[in-house]
Order: sequence, then structure tokens, then C-alpha cells
Amino acid sequence: MKKLLLFLTLFPAVVFGQNHEENIRKIYDAELSSGHTYENLRYLTKRIGNRLAGSSGAAAAVEWTRQLMENYGFDTVYLQPVMVPHWDRGGKDVVKIVNSTKHGTLELSALALGNTEGTGPSGLVGNVIEVKSIAELRELGDKVKGKIVFFNGPMDPKKIDAFEAYGEANPQRSSGAAEASKLGAIATLVRSLSNRIDDYPHTGNQRYNPDFPKIPALAISTEDAELLSSLLSDQSDLKVYMESYGQMKTEKLSYNVIGEIRGSEIPKEIIAVGGHLDSWDVGEGAHDDGSGCMQAIEVLRLYKELGWKPKRTIRAVMWMNEENGLRGGQEYARVAKEKGEKHIAAIESDSGGFLPIGFSSTGTESQREKLKSWGDLFKPYQVWNLDRPGGGADIGPLRDQGPILIGLKPDSQKYFIYHHTEADVFEAVDQRELELGAAAMAALVYLIEQEGI
Amino acid sequence: MKKLLLFLTLFPAVVFGQNHEENIRKIYDAELSSGHTYENLRYLTKRIGNRLAGSSGAAAAVEWTRQLMENYGFDTVYLQPVMVPHWDRGGKDVVKIVNSTKHGTLELSALALGNTEGTGPSGLVGNVIEVKSIAELRELGDKVKGKIVFFNGPMDPKKIDAFEAYGEANPQRSSGAAEASKLGAIATLVRSLSNRIDDYPHTGNQRYNPDFPKIPALAISTEDAELLSSLLSDQSDLKVYMESYGQMKTEKLSYNVIGEIRGSEIPKEIIAVGGHLDSWDVGEGAHDDGSGCMQAIEVLRLYKELGWKPKRTIRAVMWMNEENGLRGGQEYARVAKEKGEKHIAAIESDSGGFLPIGFSSTGTESQREKLKSWGDLFKPYQVWNLDRPGGGADIGPLRDQGPILIGLKPDSQKYFIYHHTEADVFEAVDQRELELGAAAMAALVYLIEQEGI
Repeated sequence: MKKLLLFLTLFPAVVFGQNHEENIRKIYDAELSSGHTYENLRYLTKRIGNRLAGSSGAAAAVEWTRQLMENYGFDTVYLQPVMVPHWDRGGKDVVKIVNSTKHGTLELSALALGNTEGTGPSGLVGNVIEVKSIAELRELGDKVKGKIVFFNGPMDPKKIDAFEAYGEANPQRSSGAAEASKLGAIATLVRSLSNRIDDYPHTGNQRYNPDFPKIPALAISTEDAELLSSLLSDQSDLKVYMESYGQMKTEKLSYNVIGEIRGSEIPKEIIAVGGHLDSWDVGEGAHDDGSGCMQAIEVLRLYKELGWKPKRTIRAVMWMNEENGLRGGQEYARVAKEKGEKHIAAIESDSGGFLPIGFSSTGTESQREKLKSWGDLFKPYQVWNLDRPGGGADIGPLRDQGPILIGLKPDSQKYFIYHHTEADVFEAVDQRELELGAAAMAALVYLIEQEGI
Repeated sequence: MKKLLLFLTLFPAVVFGQNHEENIRKIYDAELSSGHTYENLRYLTKRIGNRLAGSSGAAAAVEWTRQLMENYGFDTVYLQPVMVPHWDRGGKDVVKIVNSTKHGTLELSALALGNTEGTGPSGLVGNVIEVKSIAELRELGDKVKGKIVFFNGPMDPKKIDAFEAYGEANPQRSSGAAEASKLGAIATLVRSLSNRIDDYPHTGNQRYNPDFPKIPALAISTEDAELLSSLLSDQSDLKVYMESYGQMKTEKLSYNVIGEIRGSEIPKEIIAVGGHLDSWDVGEGAHDDGSGCMQAIEVLRLYKELGWKPKRTIRAVMWMNEENGLRGGQEYARVAKEKGEKHIAAIESDSGGFLPIGFSSTGTESQREKLKSWGDLFKPYQVWNLDRPGGGADIGPLRDQGPILIGLKPDSQKYFIYHHTEADVFEAVDQRELELGAAAMAALVYLIEQEGI
């Protein structure tokens, strides 16, 4: 007996490690051989399609994911009501150069940004003034009055993590119209937040300043942004016609969709894993964020397939309205607090169904150290970076309740090719990459439900 | 002075590291902002196209890469003559089920394997017998006599590194015909070596046993392999018609294409970096291996752009005939030995233009430790695995001359979707992934020319 104890004392890590090693291998084997993630994503994208909060697509996605989890036999599946904004594009967005000495009139590939007010059928015409950033806009001051401000700041190709480049370039999209309106601009055009030069306009969220006019804000493709910039440098009196129909309608009732498997030993401790069910109203919301939702459901399905009972409660959550309001994430956290639920971890996959390379996290030193201590268990699966700070939009509101917040980090090189565009379709997702992400999340959930964090 | 020495003694790693850190940052910045790799690949794939050894495409690629390197102003650019086998597909490959009770006749998507002898215009017809491996074939023994052997071993989806799954499944393609012929089979069909179920047949090399008949060997798509297998299970007397025109013609004169920048301090020590210029005769040879070739040339071009002179000689090599003979790699090593050249490292990129995640290597313990000691310099660029054994086909023959052999390791999930098919085209390569690979190779070449290995 003493010998055994000595042995256990000397090699606890090995004994501990091997068991987990085997179980994580089982997770990956099951997912890569007979996972459901990819076919579920096919259904969500091809049969339901895009699903902006408040749309019929979103309602269909709520009901379908509820049924899917019911059919998998999770212990509890329920809808959590949440009121969401309902923005409607209303019609075709048009951006047209009308007086090019070189081209005459020339239509650009455009999409109104989300939450914008349209021009209505009469459209508007104005001179265009180009800036690369909000800082440059402010330097221009009064000069933008009565004009269309063209934000043309590219994503920095030198950033290895494309999300960093996105973060830097994003203010021109999210706050450009608010800032330009303060200075009397009549509308904004914004270069699409893409790290590729192509013809897809990228929509995305923007927020008005309530004290200033809600001016139309439209994105144009990177190709057309380059073209417009080049034409402007030859012809400063270039005029652009813009037409769009966006409007914010009455709020609608929607739902977070929740499925859980109750913990067999410590059911009160909850591990949430999820993605957002809504998408923009273009493409199919495949990478953003159908992938994350189908991966989260798959985590629980793998437990059923493997016949495992988690020690702690594991919960798949499809948050609603991440794209243009974050109401689902906020409501989920509010209800959790109200009910006195104890989340020990919240894991989000909202960076695309690409090759997973790590997890980012926000938490206490001890939580983050525990996460990093599992590094060697993930390395055989090419998940190597467990040290990045981060988390996710929908899990952010849980922060003050104490769980570690964790984001699945896929490689980011290609995310912004598809993000918020017509190109974000099922075919853009690779089956193996998607499955590797689902398995990585399942392995992490497994370690946390077994060991705590 | 004493203080300074003490400082240098205490912090040599930092002083050393920062300099390299900055220089590697410069390499990546240059490549990701204004690299030529992608546009060069576009030219090679779209203007020249595929380039099997001995073909006019291969001849054009030799001349174009020579000119490209001349135009970049490398110190020396030259062609190294090498005789190569010249296999010619000769016509359209046909595989047709002729007596399906369910479908009548049914054509399958097929491609003759490289180096095969065709059936000629009269074709052949035979009964089909399915096996999953060469071991299963041997168990059948005499039963395959007069039949078409159908090798239907899938790539194992549970392998995280798809090259491992490829390695396991490969013998049925490379030796299946030789083994089946020994037992009296009249032809072979082989399931394409792909980890996706789709309709692309994959060609590839195979070797006959000179003591037995050279029977036709054709690959069929994974989709059709699944179909054929399912039909066979219902109808064991299924007959297949095969027609193909492959023939091995007279050997041809071709070339390895070599460009170098001479070392400023230790010119006799050579670091070779390269890929193979030949491809199969389908698609455009974009991932296999146009990517590797364009990355290798880019390594030297970056030195010119940055105005750097390497301490040791760096050499870009486009090897000829990797796909169906390896003559270029063998001749390169033979000439190096004959000339008494001293290669300290040979680096190959021949695993596709995908996201680079590491380097594999073969060498002495001390060489491999030196490589691994640079790990922290690569981590900011997501190149994290410097510990894998490996190398590359074309650099293998240099082994006994003492250099460390290093292979660029991109992630492998998608390589076998495109490998040896019509789908291996320029559009399948992502610009940023390709550039990250070029920059990773340039950073490694930089470290080796500075520090030795």
C-alpha cells in the first residue's frame, strides 16, 4: 500500500494524464469518424439560411436547434425569451459614381451597414472626401460638411492575427457614421473590412450618436474602394449617388436556445459552451456563426454518443442577436445571476469554422494557469496556444459572475474573406477543420467538467 | 568594459534574440505587404499550367523560372541538366461498369496512375474483386487471377496529420498493380487517396515489378469507389470496362533550375531551399508544388528587396521530376558531391501552400537541437512545431553529405483534397497562407546563414 501511495505521489501527473489522454483521443476519433457537426451545419445554412435577429430565418433556426437538441436526448432543452432589435435592409443598396470623366456612371458593389437608416427611394448625391481613419476625419473638421465621407483604411496585412487588423480598422465602420455626422457629413462609404482585394461588400454593425442625424452608411468592396480612391485622386469633384432602405423596426420576441446535460456529481457547477445563432442578412452565416453553434451542440452530442455522464453540468447555448445588439448574451447573464446559477466556465466559438490553434481566455491567474496546464493534452491535435488573452462577445456579460471566459481560436487568415458577406456559405467551411474545432471544445469541456477550473 | 562584458555574458540570448526578432519581423512585413509569391504562382499555374517531367509545360517552367531569377538579379542562375522519364497519358481514361442490374452501364470518374501502361483502344473487361489493402490481396491469392482488383482502402480520418493517413493508404496505389499482377490480375482500380468524398480522381506514381506483366492501374474518385463497393456488395458478377493509353516514352533532357546569392563571409557553406518544378499532368500543380517553388525563389528575392547579404551562400532550387522519378533530386545530390560542395542545410516545401505550422527535420542531435532552439522566434508567426522528424523527397539524396534536411510543415487537413487532381489550381491557394510559408522559410534560411547549424 505504501509503495502504491509512493508511486501515486511520484507520478500523479502521468496517471492523471494518461486517462485524459485516452478520453480526449476518444472524443477526436468519434468526431473525425462520425461527427454530425458538418451535416448539421449544412442543414442550418442550406435549409434555413441567413438569420438576422428578428427575421423569419432566426425564428426557424431557434425552432430547428431546439428540436435537434431534443432529438439528441439532452436532459433539458429550453428557450430563453429575449427581446431583440429588428433591423431590416428593406431593399437593394446602391452606390453609383455619377460623373466620372473616365467612366461616366459606374456602380460599385455595396451593402448598407447594419442598423443604418436608408436614404429612401429618392437617394442622395454628394461629393466624396476620403479619409483613412476617424483621426483623419477629425482633422478635416468642417471640410466634410455636406459631403459623403469615404473611410478607406485597409486592414494591416502585417498583422499575423487578422482579428488584430480587424480591431484596428473597425472603428471606421462601427463609429464612422456617428463621427462624420457630428461634423455635418450627409453619408458615409466605408471600405469593407476584408484582408483580400475582391468584389464582396461586407456589412456589419454600426452605432449612431443619438444627438446627431442618422446618416446612411454603406460598405463598398475592397476592389471598389481601391477604384474609388484612385478615381478621386484624379478627379476631386467626383459625385456619388447612394440609395438604401434600411430601417429599425419594432423590437421582436426571440430566444436563446439552451440544451444541457446535468452533472452527475456537482450539477450546480455549469460549463456553458456556445455560439450565436443569428447572422447578418447576407450569405448563410456559415463561419459567422453557424459553425460555432453546431460545434457547441456537438460537444453535448459527443457525450451521448460516447455514453459519458459529465461530473458537472454542461450546457450548449445558442445566443441570439450577437450581430446587432448582443441582447441574447446580456439576457443569458442576467437570468443566470437572477437564478443564482454558478458558471465555472463559459466557452464561445465565434471566430469561424477554421483550423483550431488554441484558446484565448479571461479569468483569474489560477483559472488561466489551470487552462494552460492542459497544454500537452492538446498538442497532439495541433491546438498549441492556450496563453492568449480574450474570450468572446456573448460570454462577456457573465464576467462578474466569476467563470473563466474562453474563446476557441481558429487560425484567422481567411475569416475576413467571408465575414458578413454573401460568400459566408456552407461551401466555405472545411469539414475537417470544423470537426477539429468541435473536438477541441469537447476536449476542453471534458477537462473542465472532470477537474473543475 | 568589464560591466559591458558582464552584461553580454548575462544576457546573450536577449541581445542575440532581439536582433533576430527584428530581422524576422522585417521578413514577414515585407512578404505580407508586398510579396511576389502569389503573383508568381499565378503566372506559373495560369500561364504555364501543369508540367509533368518531359512535357512542354515542364520545359516552359524551366525557362520561365530561370528568367524570373535572372530578373531578380541573383548572383548566379543556371540550369543543371538531368535526364527524366517521359510518361504520357496518351488519351482519355475510361472506367465503365457495363452490367449493373441497377444502372446498366455507368461511367466512373477515373484517371490512370502515372507510369502505367494503357489498355490501348481495345480496352479490357473483367470481373471486379474488392480488397482494402495489399495484405487483403495476398490473402485472396489465386482468386484474383484474371480479375480486376479494386483497392478500396480509405484514408484514416482519425489521423490528425493527413500525411500519416496518406502514408498508410499509399501502398495500394504505389505497389497495388505490381502486387496484383504477381497473382495474375489483369488490371487494378484504386480508390483515390483523398480524405474527402467527392468526384475528383487522383493520379499519382506507381511502380511495376519488372518480372510481371505491366497491368493497367487506374484511380477512381472516392465517391465512385463508395458506389462501386456498394454495387459489388449487391452484385458480385459486376463487370467493368477499362480503357487507357498511358505509355513510357524515351527519356528526355530536362533541368533543375538553380539560383543563388553568394555568402559574404562563408560562401562555401550552402543552404539550399526549394520545391519541385514538375507536377502531374492534371490541374495546375498549384499546391503540388508550384507553391513550394515560388516560396523558395521568394526567399532569395526577399534578400534583394531588404538589401541583405547572407553570410553563407543561399540557393533556390527547383527540382525536376519529383512526381514520377526523383531524377532531379538525385542528380542535384550527385553533382554536389562531385563538386565537393558543402551543404549545411537543405529545406524543402512540398506539402502545399497552406498555413505553415512548423518544420520537420532529419539530422544530427546537435543540428535538430539548434533548429529547436529558435522556437521562440517563430511562435509569433504561429510556427510552433519544430520537433517533428521528416524532411523531403528531393533533399533526401543529400543525406549522406551531412546537411540537416528540413521540410516546411503546413497544416495538412486540406492537402489531399487537391493533391494530383484537376482541382489543384491557383484558386485553391490562399495568398496569406502561401506568403506565411514563404516568410517562414526565409526566416529559417536567415537564421541558418547567420548562425550556421
